[in-house]
Amino acid sequence: MLETIQWTPEGVVMIDQTRLPAEETYVTCRDYLQVGDAIRTMVIRGAPAIGVAAAMGVALGIAGADSARSLDEQMEIICAELASTRPTAVNLFWGISRMKKLYAKLRGLPYEAVRDALIREAILVREEDIAINRAIGRHGADLIPDGSIVLTHCNAGALATAGYGTALGVIRAAVESGKKIAVYADETRPFLQGARLTVWELQHDGIPATLITDNMAGHFLHSGKIGCIVVGADRIAANGDVANKIGTYSVAVLAKENNVPFYVAAPISTLDLTLADGTGIPIEERNAREVTHVFGTRVAPVGTEVRNPAFDVTPNRYVTAIITEKGVARAPYESSLRDLAQTKQ
Amino acid sequence: MLETIQWTPEGVVMIDQTRLPAEETYVTCRDYLQVGDAIRTMVIRGAPAIGVAAAMGVALGIAGADSARSLDEQMEIICAELASTRPTAVNLFWGISRMKKLYAKLRGLPYEAVRDALIREAILVREEDIAINRAIGRHGADLIPDGSIVLTHCNAGALATAGYGTALGVIRAAVESGKKIAVYADETRPFLQGARLTVWELQHDGIPATLITDNMAGHFLHSGKIGCIVVGADRIAANGDVANKIGTYSVAVLAKENNVPFYVAAPISTLDLTLADGTGIPIEERNAREVTHVFGTRVAPVGTEVRNPAFDVTPNRYVTAIITEKGVARAPYESSLRDLAQTKQ
Repeated sequence: MLETIQWTPEGVVMIDQTRLPAEETYVTCRDYLQVGDAIRTMVIRGAPAIGVAAAMGVALGIAGADSARSLDEQMEIICAELASTRPTAVNLFWGISRMKKLYAKLRGLPYEAVRDALIREAILVREEDIAINRAIGRHGADLIPDGSIVLTHCNAGALATAGYGTALGVIRAAVESGKKIAVYADETRPFLQGARLTVWELQHDGIPATLITDNMAGHFLHSGKIGCIVVGADRIAANGDVANKIGTYSVAVLAKENNVPFYVAAPISTLDLTLADGTGIPIEERNAREVTHVFGTRVAPVGTEVRNPAFDVTPNRYVTAIITEKGVARAPYESSLRDLAQTKQ
Repeated sequence: MLETIQWTPEGVVMIDQTRLPAEETYVTCRDYLQVGDAIRTMVIRGAPAIGVAAAMGVALGIAGADSARSLDEQMEIICAELASTRPTAVNLFWGISRMKKLYAKLRGLPYEAVRDALIREAILVREEDIAINRAIGRHGADLIPDGSIVLTHCNAGALATAGYGTALGVIRAAVESGKKIAVYADETRPFLQGARLTVWELQHDGIPATLITDNMAGHFLHSGKIGCIVVGADRIAANGDVANKIGTYSVAVLAKENNVPFYVAAPISTLDLTLADGTGIPIEERNAREVTHVFGTRVAPVGTEVRNPAFDVTPNRYVTAIITEKGVARAPYESSLRDLAQTKQ
């Protein structure tokens, strides 16, 4: 069984997603700085998985605190460092914020009690994430037409979460419910999460997967081959605008143009109700080398100028529905998302 | 000065486009079978360049004919072999057909006269192509807004033609007319013609070029950054439906959605007026390895299923105008293309 991220006595253990599928190796982060580096370099990626990593990073930071210094001050530094790793996925900030709130409640207790409670909380965040993904899967499975091909972009699978996946969780749940589903996976340049991670995950589960380059998605949507699209999300604004891996916007426009439903699967922790719409979502621009090189081989001339936004924003009018662990939201999203966020599960 | 393809006493010399930009090497095809292989393996690619290669391949085949066998029969075999190399670009069949028609007129003349006339014709096809591209450039330059960023997909440049280029010819002509133009180049997976060839060509000419992955085009179109799009074509049906490199359809839909003009630049030889619309255009499906490997490095798991259509068809409703050497066609294309095709230049 594949494990994306786990708390162990030696530290936080992550499968190294930069080396898949060629190598299945695990990295052990022994302090919070190593967790920050793992998030920054995409050893771990995917919004929900980053949320879990952030929570575990905070716990690891406190577990390694210097008894000669103020714990409050160290907590501030740990959280600031982890918050600086990546800007777009709101789950990172959600994970840190959850640990901060617990820490505030624990103040005054002996250090060991604080530490142990934070570690328990980080482990709980991971376990909850798996349960949340299963719930997303249950809500989403009904939306997937039996006998269809589902297109997905990037990797919103077990590897993007603590386990099971959001978009791939919906597909897994549809398959578990007895539906016959095949997947078309966009390779998702520049980091190739689709080629490297999504195809690999689906192979492990025996779900038929076909790899295409990103620029083929439109062709297959136009040809009538695709029954629906399911993708994950890195941040969803109050009006349902969705930030997700670069290329998601294009797929959503092409889906609408060809009357193919476009679904977003994400936990409630991906909602950012402080943003009225997607224009306020910060878009990370990553290193040019991700575009000019593939696995260390240069594919563009020396001196090539590059743009490398890692995400784009899909306006809500292209989104057929947003599948969360609390149910399925449809337009108008201002009210449906607010209602879901307030629902007790 | 870069030369895509030339007739020399040693044979047909082509720059090896599979090795650019890392290596600038030239291949000499000494018989028509080597020309066929060069087309098949994309040592030479781009519809107009393939047309020139086909004409030169026929001339080379006749130049190497066996005097003990029927020349008619050998002509048939040479043309059939070259016609089998790639199915989509109609310029291939146009080049062969042009040589066949001349051959039919020459029948009865001494072998040396036939051979020399065919060689002269093939050289003429090359020279005409350069002149055609310059005319396309002149007609298209007016359409490009001064101070704008032009997006292009794949490589429709000097390397895709005998010289100057179709889409890049329009950009070159706009720059030569004094306009300040910058280019965004889609990398164009799986073969990376944008990253490897377009950026390299534009660097040589000192035209500012920025490389993006294919899935970023929608994001930049949506952001208002792109003034217009210019691409080439591999085959244009009578109604203006355009077959071009896979991903062109997606860019065209995204352009329309964001009110950005989408221009196609191609010689009249790319028109296929025998096809009422694009549904009849054969779409080549290439080897899976182009998708699973990048420069020999595996990027997807062993056993990955792949689709690899090399082209798609853009319906005419997404095409703002088609720029040819005889002028600019606009909708309704049935009449405008037919009129241009009948125009004497």
